[in-house]
Amino acid sequence: MATAERTWTVSPIGSVSSPRGEATDNEWGTIRASITLLPPFDGSPLRGLEEFSHVEVIYLFDRVDPSSVCLHARRPRGNPSWPEIGIAQRAKDRPNRLGLSTCELLGVEDRTIHVRGLDAVDGTPVLDVKPYLQEFAPRGSIRRAAWSTELMANYF
Amino acid sequence: MATAERTWTVSPIGSVSSPRGEATDNEWGTIRASITLLPPFDGSPLRGLEEFSHVEVIYLFDRVDPSSVCLHARRPRGNPSWPEIGIAQRAKDRPNRLGLSTCELLGVEDRTIHVRGLDAVDGTPVLDVKPYLQEFAPRGSIRRAAWSTELMANYF
Repeated sequence: MATAERTWTVSPIGSVSSPRGEATDNEWGTIRASITLLPPFDGSPLRGLEEFSHVEVIYLFDRVDPSSVCLHARRPRGNPSWPEIGIAQRAKDRPNRLGLSTCELLGVEDRTIHVRGLDAVDGTPVLDVKPYLQEFAPRGSIRRAAWSTELMANYF
Repeated sequence: MATAERTWTVSPIGSVSSPRGEATDNEWGTIRASITLLPPFDGSPLRGLEEFSHVEVIYLFDRVDPSSVCLHARRPRGNPSWPEIGIAQRAKDRPNRLGLSTCELLGVEDRTIHVRGLDAVDGTPVLDVKPYLQEFAPRGSIRRAAWSTELMANYF
């Protein structure tokens, strides 16, 4: 039987440069940041990316201590008026510390991608960048927990 | 200076059960699959997930040989009529072998999540499951490469 004991290694393909050096809960929407590919990569992995308006960025919450990752249910942001929730929140102390965000692509320049609305602090390791394809958007009508609407009110 | 030499380990929180045992390029949209959390996890990480209609699943293309990961530009699916593209395609031989898909959530049962439209084969390790929050959808109008529209025509 498979268990969670199996592990794999991941390594950064790039690093975030952002004016925001500390994580905050809100107002990420206007932040302009960039992702620069790390050595040994040159710019060729980015070929063709400029034809897309948006990218999906998978990154690592590397400032989160792995021992503080919490998979059990707790109230989002510790807010007593919200219910106890497990991984169904997007908190950063989450499985494998993986962050995911869809950002507007402003431009590609040599080894660097310029984006708007990336909710990752300066220095964050980037594990993957995917082009946003509309076919991957949710199919069917969208339903969501009420608490999440309150939580996200000023996030972007 | 940061380089790509730094590594971290990731481990599966769950495993995919799917009627599709081999990767194919098309017709994922109607596939019903499930993700079952692996020991030592019980069902508590899933608390609150049932209030969402969709989830974002990050998984590992574990059947891809790490040595075959290609970051340089090549034609998607080897199709000579499409341009050479780097990571701006969603091919599985990609950085850190990370897959990402937004699926319809059909239900949550004990340690198992039932989904429709997950493009991962049976046995795929799951690294994270996030609730789909509409605020993370692309902001602004969407633009994309013409080849990607052709490629995705029958994917879901």
